[in-house]
Amino acid sequence: MGMNEILKGKVKTLFETDNPEEVLIRYEDCVTAGNGQMIEYPKGKGTICCLMTAMLFEYLESNSIRTHFIDCPSLDTMRCKKLKIAPVEVICRNIAAGSIVKTTNITEGFLIQPPIVEFFLKDDSKNDPLLTPDRVRLMGIHTEPLIEKARNVNDLLQPLFLLCGIDLVDFKLEFGYDAHGDLFLADELSPDNMRLWSKDRTERFDKDLFRKGEGDIVEAYKVILTKLRQFV
Amino acid sequence: MGMNEILKGKVKTLFETDNPEEVLIRYEDCVTAGNGQMIEYPKGKGTICCLMTAMLFEYLESNSIRTHFIDCPSLDTMRCKKLKIAPVEVICRNIAAGSIVKTTNITEGFLIQPPIVEFFLKDDSKNDPLLTPDRVRLMGIHTEPLIEKARNVNDLLQPLFLLCGIDLVDFKLEFGYDAHGDLFLADELSPDNMRLWSKDRTERFDKDLFRKGEGDIVEAYKVILTKLRQFV
Repeated sequence: MGMNEILKGKVKTLFETDNPEEVLIRYEDCVTAGNGQMIEYPKGKGTICCLMTAMLFEYLESNSIRTHFIDCPSLDTMRCKKLKIAPVEVICRNIAAGSIVKTTNITEGFLIQPPIVEFFLKDDSKNDPLLTPDRVRLMGIHTEPLIEKARNVNDLLQPLFLLCGIDLVDFKLEFGYDAHGDLFLADELSPDNMRLWSKDRTERFDKDLFRKGEGDIVEAYKVILTKLRQFV
Repeated sequence: MGMNEILKGKVKTLFETDNPEEVLIRYEDCVTAGNGQMIEYPKGKGTICCLMTAMLFEYLESNSIRTHFIDCPSLDTMRCKKLKIAPVEVICRNIAAGSIVKTTNITEGFLIQPPIVEFFLKDDSKNDPLLTPDRVRLMGIHTEPLIEKARNVNDLLQPLFLLCGIDLVDFKLEFGYDAHGDLFLADELSPDNMRLWSKDRTERFDKDLFRKGEGDIVEAYKVILTKLRQFV
């Protein structure tokens, strides 16, 4: 199978295959933060994020959420449906942390009930700015299907992590459309794009460990993978 | 009447008076942009912004919009009802310009139909970030009365400026609550916090002249004041 690089992202590389309806996504041993200003290359990180994403996408698929995931031809590579990716990041928040705390007077740890869904422009050159639902609509994107799907994903993931003794604080989703305009969950689902806190809030198991220089992310991600495997 | 300074803002100074339910607002001969990074002191600017605000607030009051304005004891000073100011700036947009263009892929001049109302946190230390309606609600602020009032103001101002051959592109409002919790329009209403373009889009009459170094704002603001006086 030929592998021609289409796109080199910050931590994943996209390849085309002999099948024009599919792509391969290779998860690199790389972690970045601050729009690429911080960067490290932890060994085994690509594999663990790929495995976690595959496991969670399979779990979501078995619960009627359509994703781009097909299978894993190797431990760090996913075969996926080729999609036209929507130019927004969709964030679902259960507990206030990260950018919402920095740019409001809402304090970290505040319980967001009901959970909210937010949109950010996927544009590194503009620093991925927050969008209002009005702005998303003015960009020609229907917000309602994205909000509904993000809520469905949250309704499935939150109880799963609770079984593991973990609070799903927030997570980022990306979506794409196939040639028929049907919506699929795309990208990745790993502690690189979720915040995971122990129920007692003494430990975190996500990329904030790297952002704050507080621990080994590969070890932390492995803890999550092991816990999840008991229940998925 | 005693005048004790309560608060020195970037272009206005607030004084308390002998009446605990009132304040005086003095409009300074000062203009700033970029969160205070650009600053100039154009002579006559305080007076023209004070006069324009007084005129527009009286016009809105006569159309059932409650404002904090009482009267002008001098040309650059307004006597106002003392309010507890909401910590958000409320922006109404009819045409895309400014920050919405910088932080989305919406192009300048795009007609926003229907107009949208946006919220920004009033916090210079955080650079006045955009808020979603969800974030405003999480901050404990009821968005609906603010959105409704902003739309009402737009419905009154837009046709007034059209009579003058001017497109009201966007404008910023601030609101405050009196001791009974009743909502009033507060702050200022001048080309310092609106964008005003000639219908043919060849001229602007607002603070962007200063931001972009394209002309004399006091002269431009006087053109607007003269035009408005024909109709108010």
